[in-house]
Amino acid sequence: MTLATSPLAPTGFPELPPIAGVKLATAAAGIRRNHRADLLVAEMALGTSVAGTLTRSLCPAAPVEWCRRVLDQGDRSARALVCNSGNANAFTGKAGEISTELTALAVASGLGVSAESVLVASTGLIGEPMPDEKVAAALPPLLESLQPSDKQGWQEAAEAIRTTDTFAKGSFASVNGTDATIVGIAKGSGMIAPDMATMLGFLFTDLAVGPEILQSSLSSAVNRSFNRITVDSDTSTNDSVLLFATGAGSADPIISTSDPRLPAFQAALENVTLDLAQQIIRDGEGATKLVAVKVTGAVSEDSAAAIAKSIADSPLVKTALAAGDANWGRVVMAVGKAGQPANRDRLAIWIGPEQVAESGSVLDGYRESVATEHLGQDEVEITVDVGVGEHQATVWTCDLTHGYIEINAGYRT
Amino acid sequence: MTLATSPLAPTGFPELPPIAGVKLATAAAGIRRNHRADLLVAEMALGTSVAGTLTRSLCPAAPVEWCRRVLDQGDRSARALVCNSGNANAFTGKAGEISTELTALAVASGLGVSAESVLVASTGLIGEPMPDEKVAAALPPLLESLQPSDKQGWQEAAEAIRTTDTFAKGSFASVNGTDATIVGIAKGSGMIAPDMATMLGFLFTDLAVGPEILQSSLSSAVNRSFNRITVDSDTSTNDSVLLFATGAGSADPIISTSDPRLPAFQAALENVTLDLAQQIIRDGEGATKLVAVKVTGAVSEDSAAAIAKSIADSPLVKTALAAGDANWGRVVMAVGKAGQPANRDRLAIWIGPEQVAESGSVLDGYRESVATEHLGQDEVEITVDVGVGEHQATVWTCDLTHGYIEINAGYRT
Repeated sequence: MTLATSPLAPTGFPELPPIAGVKLATAAAGIRRNHRADLLVAEMALGTSVAGTLTRSLCPAAPVEWCRRVLDQGDRSARALVCNSGNANAFTGKAGEISTELTALAVASGLGVSAESVLVASTGLIGEPMPDEKVAAALPPLLESLQPSDKQGWQEAAEAIRTTDTFAKGSFASVNGTDATIVGIAKGSGMIAPDMATMLGFLFTDLAVGPEILQSSLSSAVNRSFNRITVDSDTSTNDSVLLFATGAGSADPIISTSDPRLPAFQAALENVTLDLAQQIIRDGEGATKLVAVKVTGAVSEDSAAAIAKSIADSPLVKTALAAGDANWGRVVMAVGKAGQPANRDRLAIWIGPEQVAESGSVLDGYRESVATEHLGQDEVEITVDVGVGEHQATVWTCDLTHGYIEINAGYRT
Repeated sequence: MTLATSPLAPTGFPELPPIAGVKLATAAAGIRRNHRADLLVAEMALGTSVAGTLTRSLCPAAPVEWCRRVLDQGDRSARALVCNSGNANAFTGKAGEISTELTALAVASGLGVSAESVLVASTGLIGEPMPDEKVAAALPPLLESLQPSDKQGWQEAAEAIRTTDTFAKGSFASVNGTDATIVGIAKGSGMIAPDMATMLGFLFTDLAVGPEILQSSLSSAVNRSFNRITVDSDTSTNDSVLLFATGAGSADPIISTSDPRLPAFQAALENVTLDLAQQIIRDGEGATKLVAVKVTGAVSEDSAAAIAKSIADSPLVKTALAAGDANWGRVVMAVGKAGQPANRDRLAIWIGPEQVAESGSVLDGYRESVATEHLGQDEVEITVDVGVGEHQATVWTCDLTHGYIEINAGYRT
């Protein structure tokens, strides 16, 4: 099945700048059935720190468990990332663990670094054994071909990690007040395709950032971006976001939480993660609308996010959005089922600029035509004030259309 | 929009027996837009006890809150049930509370009973004010027309509470070792239609059962039936199941938990609730398959049910089922996201009679053709052993098809 490019796709792949201390190479190793690039190696300079957030699935893929061990036990120094598409190496038992180790060892020995400094990620079919011999054959020439990261290298890297994404995803931001940069690439949109099972995000900066600060910056950024998107509520076995800080740029290292540049770094990081997360929603299966669900007046940010996610995950809300139907009763339903503090009799709802309800019932003078007009656009917003506190959060999703059924009810072959 | 009868519908409405102590009447009050019966009153004999389970939505409809007060504060004696279709009386503010009270008072004064002995239920559009004058005009002649329950009366009652259900739902069972009977009617399938928002179930027995025993019997039966079905994971603002025990039959009352007839009563009750719950799934939006998801080897029954529900709620599993695709990788994904204890490396999976996986990877000699043949049937079963305990549970669902999008992306008008 060939998928048409999403109608919500950006106009083109961004021109991503070089990141000092990062080299890239890709190859078509034959892991995917069609002969497309399916293997990426990124080599990082000595002194690079890594931070990561991994799927909370209790049936994680072998490379996710490998990364968890590396992140938990190591000193957070990293020298390489290797990622294949076409096979998720999930639910593959002991053989899958061995495949991951062999891959890490092959990269480590080729680059003369320790295996524990090599991060591994996989995306593709669940339950198929990894073609170890193909990876083993492809790696040596691939490692020979590593080149300093540049515009073309980033685009090829983003292409190599795609599965059935309809466009490659990349983003970058400068860190204000420094000459440092953050570049990110990503793939997927939840469980995006018939059997593809991964959301991956890889981020790179030429700043040096202490490993604990790096991890807390990443966790916070992921919590407000990748963890705030939903296409179909299905959590992958392979979700991984990794952030590498090479320190090969000219900026001084950030080693203290009181460093005045840290807020700028955090802002730039959130910029990149949020842009990538929204690109994933723009490539959501069957998506025709990018939807922001904003919840205000909640008891905490987490509670606001949980209510927004309940609305954004509701198939009834999402089918109404597909039809451009201002069906706010379904929003009330989804607030009610979230199980979070909310005051039904103080609930207020807006569709785009138009207030629909206040104090728990429909507003006198509510103009359905204005709400319907807003819902006719590509990018729409639903806001709900739940009337119990001061906190807010936004979750991004897409509508649920025939395209979703079409893509996912197809056979794997 | 007129919906064709579900392909999974039973061949006809069952011949439900009379229940001593229950009178029925229905009317077309004009609450629905088309001129169809939309108001049901059931009058129960003096001495009737009631038990109920109500939606856990935090935005419940006014009649749900009324029932909660009656059940919490009263002595659990009940004399009448009044239910309208066409309007859910949800998110209607103070006016909605008054509508419910007026309805209960009108029934109470017409029958000469207290308002606190009248249970009220509504199903239909969310957020529309109730047409109080239509209800007030329809009730007096309706109360005049009450007739002892019989085959025809039950069928008319089941028809009157339908919204966009494609068939009326009824079931009954005898209580073994007694001459007592349980009859039940129900409507809905989660949030079944463009704006209809209710699952309702009403159960009646001629046994006398002490109120605490009645409640615990009902809670247990609902937990293993209505709480174990899912069409789209969307929880209604109006879900209510009420059980009335009139004591007007010839059997002796059940007033002790050591009564030897209690297991037979519980079994008959679970029979009826499970049959009704499965009828609701058979009428699931766009459903073409009735799917049983059985989880074994879990640490508790609740944990088994939570894992089964995660599988049954997964849009990716449900679209694969629609296509008859034996895509067990998606089952693994859904086990992983359930957040319940499970041992990935001991996971075993069956599709119908065919074992797909054991010990966390695909089984040697797994025959996909046998699994695919099973999935071609109307009724299919997926079994997963999660390898951490001795408990099990089954959840019923339906597949996710274009029909679901078709029904729910339609405009309300």
